[in-house]
Amino acid sequence: MATFPLAPGSTIGILGGGQLGRMLALAAARLGFEIAILTPEPDACAARVAAHGIVAAYDDPDALAALARIAEVVTFEFENVPASVVAQLGALGVEVAPGPRALAMAQDRVDEKTFLRECRVPTVDFAAVANPRDVIAALDKLGAPALLKTRREGYDGKGQTWIESHADAEAAFERIGKVPAIVEARADFVRELSVIAARGRDGDVRAYPLGENHHENGVLRRTSAPAGVTAAVAAEAETIAARILTQLDYVGVIGVELFELAEGRLLVNEFAPRVHNSGHWTLDGCEVDQFEQHIRAVAGWPLGPTAPLAHVVMENLLGDEINDWPALAHEAEARLWLYGKGEPRPGRKMGHINRLRPLD
Amino acid sequence: MATFPLAPGSTIGILGGGQLGRMLALAAARLGFEIAILTPEPDACAARVAAHGIVAAYDDPDALAALARIAEVVTFEFENVPASVVAQLGALGVEVAPGPRALAMAQDRVDEKTFLRECRVPTVDFAAVANPRDVIAALDKLGAPALLKTRREGYDGKGQTWIESHADAEAAFERIGKVPAIVEARADFVRELSVIAARGRDGDVRAYPLGENHHENGVLRRTSAPAGVTAAVAAEAETIAARILTQLDYVGVIGVELFELAEGRLLVNEFAPRVHNSGHWTLDGCEVDQFEQHIRAVAGWPLGPTAPLAHVVMENLLGDEINDWPALAHEAEARLWLYGKGEPRPGRKMGHINRLRPLD
Repeated sequence: MATFPLAPGSTIGILGGGQLGRMLALAAARLGFEIAILTPEPDACAARVAAHGIVAAYDDPDALAALARIAEVVTFEFENVPASVVAQLGALGVEVAPGPRALAMAQDRVDEKTFLRECRVPTVDFAAVANPRDVIAALDKLGAPALLKTRREGYDGKGQTWIESHADAEAAFERIGKVPAIVEARADFVRELSVIAARGRDGDVRAYPLGENHHENGVLRRTSAPAGVTAAVAAEAETIAARILTQLDYVGVIGVELFELAEGRLLVNEFAPRVHNSGHWTLDGCEVDQFEQHIRAVAGWPLGPTAPLAHVVMENLLGDEINDWPALAHEAEARLWLYGKGEPRPGRKMGHINRLRPLD
Repeated sequence: MATFPLAPGSTIGILGGGQLGRMLALAAARLGFEIAILTPEPDACAARVAAHGIVAAYDDPDALAALARIAEVVTFEFENVPASVVAQLGALGVEVAPGPRALAMAQDRVDEKTFLRECRVPTVDFAAVANPRDVIAALDKLGAPALLKTRREGYDGKGQTWIESHADAEAAFERIGKVPAIVEARADFVRELSVIAARGRDGDVRAYPLGENHHENGVLRRTSAPAGVTAAVAAEAETIAARILTQLDYVGVIGVELFELAEGRLLVNEFAPRVHNSGHWTLDGCEVDQFEQHIRAVAGWPLGPTAPLAHVVMENLLGDEINDWPALAHEAEARLWLYGKGEPRPGRKMGHINRLRPLD
């Protein structure tokens, strides 16, 4: 097993080869760590900035054995890592951080919300459903319209649909593929916020200032941070993040999506057990960004400061929006982050831009 | 030939695989560029964060052909790139930036100072010498003690020696290996400063605030920036940098080492046609650091802002000083940059730390 704090020169494994893995790899390199990327995708953008790349299915035993030989500790950039992978790596003496419990909670929307309620963290009302009859019962309890989501998988608005009325129940269940699901009451929120927080191996918890998020077609379009919120809202968000992190004995960065209601009350929408798109503003807005913070936590280093240095509006570059790079490169107070992906398919996250202005 | 501005996804070649190449590679990755490192050293720290690594002598024709096939443009992280390499790459249709004239001037101390004088840039008085008789004649003109340096090669205090008196002339010439050399008059300076500046392909010139440098045993120990200087000194340094860059039709970042005399007058000690150790403070002190600035220039992108965001004291971690990493990782306002090198040999640059405080 690894000895913490992990010494520079040690290798950290990352499951996943997308932009989050790439930015984790760049942060790790600054601290002198080596990175090994395991991904089924050949030529993944994260692997091209890493010392080691293994192209294989996540649960390929030989690949996991190879990863375990070089990596002292393993983390991931997406929440659908199979539980069996964490178990296999554990059997090979390599710890995965954040741990299996955080992963399990993040992989099932019913378990996640049940867990949140147990932590005294407010969420929308919800009901687990397995057939159209359950959906109707859920609508009786939660009212319509309501949101139907698959219990597992799904991201960026995929695997979910609105149920407009009782009459729509059966069709809605078909639209999401007739799989175990959750019905969520409509949240009457005024805006969407998120809190990016981290917990170190020493139990230290640090939260970044809140971001205000704007989605389009279920995909994050823009985060403005630090969001203008009352001190009470900021404190409540930090308390929520700290409860989740502590209850899960979590190590690493978490992204917690929040709904702010009219009276300033917060509900948790969901959390992602990883670095989060709505935390990209920290790359240029904080001394230690969420990627370095995650590497620090996973490596057993002390967490870094989370105070903001600038106000940032982060905007995703989706699909062929990346073709605007010549104009974007000319904006003096805008820092570009391009992910080195190949084809700009529609909706694909190709990069982001952080537009800076002095703190208010 | 490449089309500028270079599109993200293009490959930039770097000659050299040390920490400067590594930090250039990390900056290039943020902008979506691919990096190819050519270095004779196996397992070079820059190659481990680059998509392509070629291990060969710099003037290996096959290696240069391989580099020319993948790279749109080539730059370098050290100034002793053979002129033949630039010519070979040029014949293969690949431009090297900064160009051959900047390299030639930086490779010969007599040519460099002659060029600087032609640019109306002040330097110490000097004389070219090729034998002990020349050295004595130089001492007659410049006085003793004086500094004897090889015309070519030499860095971090290597290849140079003080001549204490006329009687020491022959021995001093032997100490530097009886090679063509330069004798430099002693500069009666009060401190050492440097200016990091850049010139884009559009001719735009930008300078960072000055750094104040402290050397130990000929090696940079510490840079404090922005240095406390008068407006006149800052303006003079910028003028000097702009003259050099413009006269050389330069593309990229340059590091110009300066002596500040008692009355505030500046002399140029030497310049390095590359990113420079005394510019590492920009990594945490500026929105766009010297590495991204260099990539922007070489890629034909507009230069970024150079205003300081914080005051930084940069300290090199030499040899086994890197073993202090656990304590350094605990300093809240200190950002660590570790280079992923292997053995901490005495004096080897293993990393640096940027200690931040708010601007005065």
